[in-house]
This record gives sequence, C-alpha cells and structure tokens, in this order.
Amino acid sequence: MTPTIGVFDSGFGGLTVLRALVERLPHAEFAFIGDTARLPYGSKSRRTIARYAVQSAQFLVQEQGAEYLVIACNTASALALDAIQEAVPVPVLGVIEPGAQAAQAASHSGDVLVIATDATVQSHAYAAACHARGLRALEKACPLLVPLVEEGWTDHPVTAEVARIYLDELNAAAAAEGLQPDTLVLGCTHYPLLRPLLERTVPPGMRVIDSAESAAEAAAGLINGRAAGVAGEPSGPAKIRCFATDSVEKFERLGSRFLGRPVGHVELIDLGG
Amino acid sequence: MTPTIGVFDSGFGGLTVLRALVERLPHAEFAFIGDTARLPYGSKSRRTIARYAVQSAQFLVQEQGAEYLVIACNTASALALDAIQEAVPVPVLGVIEPGAQAAQAASHSGDVLVIATDATVQSHAYAAACHARGLRALEKACPLLVPLVEEGWTDHPVTAEVARIYLDELNAAAAAEGLQPDTLVLGCTHYPLLRPLLERTVPPGMRVIDSAESAAEAAAGLINGRAAGVAGEPSGPAKIRCFATDSVEKFERLGSRFLGRPVGHVELIDLGG
Repeated sequence: MTPTIGVFDSGFGGLTVLRALVERLPHAEFAFIGDTARLPYGSKSRRTIARYAVQSAQFLVQEQGAEYLVIACNTASALALDAIQEAVPVPVLGVIEPGAQAAQAASHSGDVLVIATDATVQSHAYAAACHARGLRALEKACPLLVPLVEEGWTDHPVTAEVARIYLDELNAAAAAEGLQPDTLVLGCTHYPLLRPLLERTVPPGMRVIDSAESAAEAAAGLINGRAAGVAGEPSGPAKIRCFATDSVEKFERLGSRFLGRPVGHVELIDLGG
Repeated sequence: MTPTIGVFDSGFGGLTVLRALVERLPHAEFAFIGDTARLPYGSKSRRTIARYAVQSAQFLVQEQGAEYLVIACNTASALALDAIQEAVPVPVLGVIEPGAQAAQAASHSGDVLVIATDATVQSHAYAAACHARGLRALEKACPLLVPLVEEGWTDHPVTAEVARIYLDELNAAAAAEGLQPDTLVLGCTHYPLLRPLLERTVPPGMRVIDSAESAAEAAAGLINGRAAGVAGEPSGPAKIRCFATDSVEKFERLGSRFLGRPVGHVELIDLGG
C-alpha cells in the first residue's frame, strides 16, 4: 500500500526537503502545505509558531490522510515539534535531529557551525541537538540569505559578499571560543539553493551539511522500514499535491526552483486566519 | 481637547511615519500598532491584507479611542484603504496619495520613479495615483531593502551595491520607455532609514521623496484644521502607546531606529490569529 507523506513548511523553502524525499521514495504519495499567509515563521514567537504549525499538521493528517509527517521547516522543527507530535497520531520527523546526526558523522574535530534564521538560532535547538551528541556547536542567524534566495540571486556577487561577511563573523567567533570547526550545517530549507556558493565560501576542507538532505534520508529510512515498495526506481513522476494559505501564484512561480521541477497547480486553503 | 491619532503598520517600519507625525503634532496622543505576527504584508494577497488591516484599524478606533487613523504601511494603503475606510467611522489617511502629491510638487519633467515592496508595486497604486495627477510613473519592487534595513546595514557597502543594482535597472527601464525621471518616491516605510544612502545613489539632480514625511504632513494639515492646539512647540515627550501582535522584544529593540527615540514598553495584543 502506498503511504501518504505530509510535508509542512511555513513557505515553499521546504520543497527542497520534498525534492530530496521524492528522490528517495518515488513510489510514495506526497501532500505539501506551505503556510504562506503567515510566513516567515523565523521572526515570530514560539507560541505563535506552535499554533500555526499544529493547524497545518492537522490539515495534512485529518484532511489529506498523511500517515507520516515531515516538518520541512527548521523554525517549526526547533520550536513546535513537541506540540505537533502531541497534536497528531502519526510519526512526525523534523529537520533538526537529522542535521545534527549528519554533522556528527561528518565532523572529525567535533566542532560544528550552524547557520539559520533568527528564531531557529534563538531556540538553540541545533546547539542542543549537537551537544547531546557530544559536539560543540556555534550558531549564527543569517537573515539576509532567505530574501537573497527568493530574489533569485543564488549565484550573485552580492550574495557571495553577504555569505562571506556572515561566515567570517561566525569563523571569528568560533576561533575566539577556541573551536576548530570543520563542518557547517545549513539550518534553513532555503539554503540548499546556496550550497554551491557556500561551498566556495567556507574555509578549505570544511564540510557542508544540508539538513534538507539529512531529513529526507532519515524519513526514507523510517518509512522504508514500515512500508514496502516505496523506494526503488521511479516509474513516473511522484504524486504530489501542493497547498498554500496565500500567494499561490508566487508559490507556483518560485517553487520550481526549490522542487527542481514544476510544482503544478497549488490549491489555496484557509486554515482560519 | 487632545486628539488621539491611531497609526497602523504591518511591522514597526511605520514608526518612521509616527516619528514624522510627532514632530508636527507634539501635543496629540498616539496609539501605534504593528501587526508583527502577520508581517510582512508585502508578499500577501489583497484579501488577506484587507482582513488583517481592518482588524488593526478596529482595535485602534474601538479600543484605543483613535479619532484619526494613519495607515503607515504602503502595502495596506495600496490594497486595503477602501476596506478600512468602510470599516471605521473616523478619517483614514494612507501614505500613497500624499507621496504622489509630493512627487507632483517636486517633479519638473513629470516623470517619477517609485521603489516599494512586491505587493505595493503589483497593486500599481502609486502609478495610478501619479497618473491621476498627470505624472508618468515607473515602479520597481526592491525586496532586499527591508531585510537590509532590519539587519541594520543602513550604511553598508552591500546595501549600496544592492541599491545601485535596483536603481540602475529602474533607470534603464525608464530610459527604454522614453521617460526622463527627476524624482524618486520611497514607497515603503522602511526606506527613510536608507534615504542618505539612496540620495548618494540616484543620478545627480534627482529628488528623493519620503512618503512617510509626506503622509505626516498631510495628516498634520487635516488634524490641525480640526483640532486646535496640537501643533506648536513640544512641551515634553509626546504620549505614545505602542502595541504589537508578536515579537515585542524585537519591536522594542529595533523600533528605536525608526522612531528616533526609545519606543518604551510595547504591549502584546491578540487580534485573533
């Protein structure tokens, strides 16, 4: 039986996670919701984010029949994973734990850097997940990177300069604390589009961990263990239903950059303001 | 009798309008609300923006006793002014008309440029207001400028480069349409903080119109005509009550840059999700 996997983000950045999921589980069905009416979550409070995220999770499970949920939003994973797990009766995976796990596997020095939105950094969820694995982690908010990606400047001199400034500040702070970081975690689902640029910007030898890839890997491992026949070679385009709470046109127009193929029709839904 | 003036924005950028109002009406009382739980309005649909803006307007009139409303948000002025005027029984002023009026007074060629958020530009409200005054107007969305201001990079080489790219594109488009623009309208309440940088970036002789200043000027004219004793020399700091729907700490921390003085305590309110 084909499982339905619900994927949730505050916007369409989480389509990078969906893309990585589809590559690993081409025979599953997917329902994706971007809560675009209320993005960005990155600057909002924990209470507000949890309330919004639970509404989206319930929509995916109750109305779209999702049997697994992937929270493809670092901010919601950081601030609302517990609330979502309490609110729905299906397995819920976030992006933080898989990112920390991949950082552990990649790092030799045990010192890692994390870049993310303001709210994700202020939650210190990555630092906590890294510390629990015996890693030392230093986090930095990079609020300009999401608007630069959405402007389409993913390979632009301005973006390279902004990334250089942020990473120089982060590396200087790490050196001041006596860290020897060898791994950079991309703690925002927009950042995979900057991966080539960031790999050119980090010091030589530093590994770049894409938490979207890591989360998809973890979800595929869980779902393959429970549902037979969802991995393997694709027999055709995976079935994907996309929903948004606002700005459907922008979602359809920009989403393909994140999904790596046209997103098709996006259905507008109302989660109640 | 001291009038109460309600000022509304999606965030705290509208504090630049409040600052200009306080300078002109130091004896009035002010209630400011930033709907920070639901910002930015710039990427949302007209329907959603109108619903949000009406809730804030009703809060200011019904619960804070505002006798005048200034919509210190270009997006809401562009997309929701009619809806707000229908929803409350007090005079409502936006920022679009005063900006167009100031552009008309400043321009000799009759050709003006407007920079603003995506939603403001897509509404073409500035172009319509300019055309109604016999001006030709070309608008451009500059989505990176708000996050650059919020990052505090108001006098930064990256911001100068981004502004140069946007204005070069806009001037090239104007030349291609045979326009001879001599006036640039700042159609977003964040942009006054970039005014010195933008004045260095525009071609020699181009006038820069700050729609926050223009809106405050128009509001002061209206209110002085109806309420005696609200203008004149300040006798002390104007009375300002600030409210926000989320992220009060960020409002208090960043708002002073926009208001030009500490914003003090910001009260968290719930407009109902």
